[in-house]
Amino acid sequence: MNFPFFVCILGSSSAMPAFGRNTSAQVLSHNSRLFLLDCGEGAQLQFRKYQFRNSRLDAIFISHLHGDHIWGLPGFLTTLSLSNHLEPLVIYGPKGLKNLVEHMIVASQSFIKYPLEIIEIEPSNSFPYIVYENKGLQVSCFPLQHRIECYGFLFQEKPKRARFMYYEAKRDGIPKEYYSLLKNGAALVLQNGLEIAANQYLGEAPPSFSYAYCTDTRYSDSYLPYIQGATVLYHEATFTQEFLVRAEETAHSTAQEAALAAKTAGVEQLIIGHFSARYRYLDTFLAESQSIFANTELAIEGRMFPIPPPAILPLTEGLEDASNHDRTTPDFE
Amino acid sequence: MNFPFFVCILGSSSAMPAFGRNTSAQVLSHNSRLFLLDCGEGAQLQFRKYQFRNSRLDAIFISHLHGDHIWGLPGFLTTLSLSNHLEPLVIYGPKGLKNLVEHMIVASQSFIKYPLEIIEIEPSNSFPYIVYENKGLQVSCFPLQHRIECYGFLFQEKPKRARFMYYEAKRDGIPKEYYSLLKNGAALVLQNGLEIAANQYLGEAPPSFSYAYCTDTRYSDSYLPYIQGATVLYHEATFTQEFLVRAEETAHSTAQEAALAAKTAGVEQLIIGHFSARYRYLDTFLAESQSIFANTELAIEGRMFPIPPPAILPLTEGLEDASNHDRTTPDFE
Repeated sequence: MNFPFFVCILGSSSAMPAFGRNTSAQVLSHNSRLFLLDCGEGAQLQFRKYQFRNSRLDAIFISHLHGDHIWGLPGFLTTLSLSNHLEPLVIYGPKGLKNLVEHMIVASQSFIKYPLEIIEIEPSNSFPYIVYENKGLQVSCFPLQHRIECYGFLFQEKPKRARFMYYEAKRDGIPKEYYSLLKNGAALVLQNGLEIAANQYLGEAPPSFSYAYCTDTRYSDSYLPYIQGATVLYHEATFTQEFLVRAEETAHSTAQEAALAAKTAGVEQLIIGHFSARYRYLDTFLAESQSIFANTELAIEGRMFPIPPPAILPLTEGLEDASNHDRTTPDFE
Repeated sequence: MNFPFFVCILGSSSAMPAFGRNTSAQVLSHNSRLFLLDCGEGAQLQFRKYQFRNSRLDAIFISHLHGDHIWGLPGFLTTLSLSNHLEPLVIYGPKGLKNLVEHMIVASQSFIKYPLEIIEIEPSNSFPYIVYENKGLQVSCFPLQHRIECYGFLFQEKPKRARFMYYEAKRDGIPKEYYSLLKNGAALVLQNGLEIAANQYLGEAPPSFSYAYCTDTRYSDSYLPYIQGATVLYHEATFTQEFLVRAEETAHSTAQEAALAAKTAGVEQLIIGHFSARYRYLDTFLAESQSIFANTELAIEGRMFPIPPPAILPLTEGLEDASNHDRTTPDFE
């Protein structure tokens, strides 16, 4: 499996580990750069178990300071240092995170050899605001409705470059030296007098996708505008509908409420997680959510979810298509 | 396996998890009461994996504040509370522990519902001094030689009651009502005029055993007097002899040095652990230690070590003995 954009679940248990489920942590991978989303106890073990590489890690995003989302941080950070990680790392999270992490590092007389920066989200800013960006991705944050200050994150691919129409350029006998100019949409007059208009060999830009991470939160329409139209939504579903009152009391959501969020926000796929330790089996979560939003998946540890979710063609359509297949792959494949 | 006194290894990796080995943690069980020795990340998962019961836990002993010995604490303590543990719990450890744990609990807005006391070891006291005792066990602490303040612990069984000679009392026709007096060594005159001297039906007291826990430490003879004659010694062995210089630099010990400690202190059995993450295989540790102290065992996760170690009779001796076996078990067995 080699997707440019995917999320892998490292932990999906609420409050404490239960039934083999670890507390909250996920790895988001985009163009081979990695981002850690929350860091429950044991996240470093899970990160290694699923063979993610330290050297690809760029940033950590912490939703809130409840222990089941942060107790893996000191071990994760110190093990990185002991493993001779030297690249800079940035952690984004709510107020208090910097003080807490620094206190833990100092009290344990640990050393962090790489440049570590902790950037706290400013609650007085207007939301959503961008906390992180690189060449191809931007991450914005927005407030959720929990018992303590808690943030959701939206990971959005930036607009992509238009596809270069390689076969058409080759067919027209354009020398290869001009390709990089053409990829940038330049207008040219070749030495043989051939005129090429701006963007002549550029096709459509591939679509950009996004991943919304919403945990922990009481279901509310307050944060739905921020995740409107996201490709994939991870939404906490701590309880089944039977425990709606408990969900209200503890500022969590039920599976049906997560599904309602997905439906209202018009996402393609919903992943539900953060399951209460009272549940051994998760089939009720799935059934309840799917009754409202069909394309729901359970956040099972080790599962990877490509973004966008792969479209599965019905078998007959695939077979029909095979006969008049428009070959667009290069000759050498 | 139902031993009154044993230790179970939960983690034996130094500094960071490696090759399936978790960071330091052990459970010591004495008369069904449990004690946690250090609490590396993931200790709560290991504690549950090996099916120890929260309700039997009385105290936690922390050797020092390096992360690989404490990062499991916040998760362990909060999960206990979430699991409706209500009995008091005491943690013993070096200065700074109380502040660190309280900071972590407060910053994460966690709640500890049971009475939790953190007692810091006073370095100006004269060592060894007793930090904990119950009816049958006392625990003393003493300084080790590490880069930061670090303590070893000696778990000693208190002198046991003399064995009541049940069969002899029965043979002599003593009515059962007198047994509890006789167990306490009372002198009696029965109604039929029979005189019983003090301690007449008391045999020898069973021996008392002890467990010494020494991690992390540079090998030195400074702490050997405190563990002299211990039944079982756990001694760190972070390196093989090849890395002696590194052991000196980092204030750790080699397997041979751990063996030397065991030999000099005259213990019955040595358990070595706290293996550096540079080692995938541990056979060199065992070979090097056994070259100096034969009865060495590796601290493998999940292994239980009875205290004292069970004596294995040679097969022939066992067979000879079987013929003139002196039956001392009650009739109903």
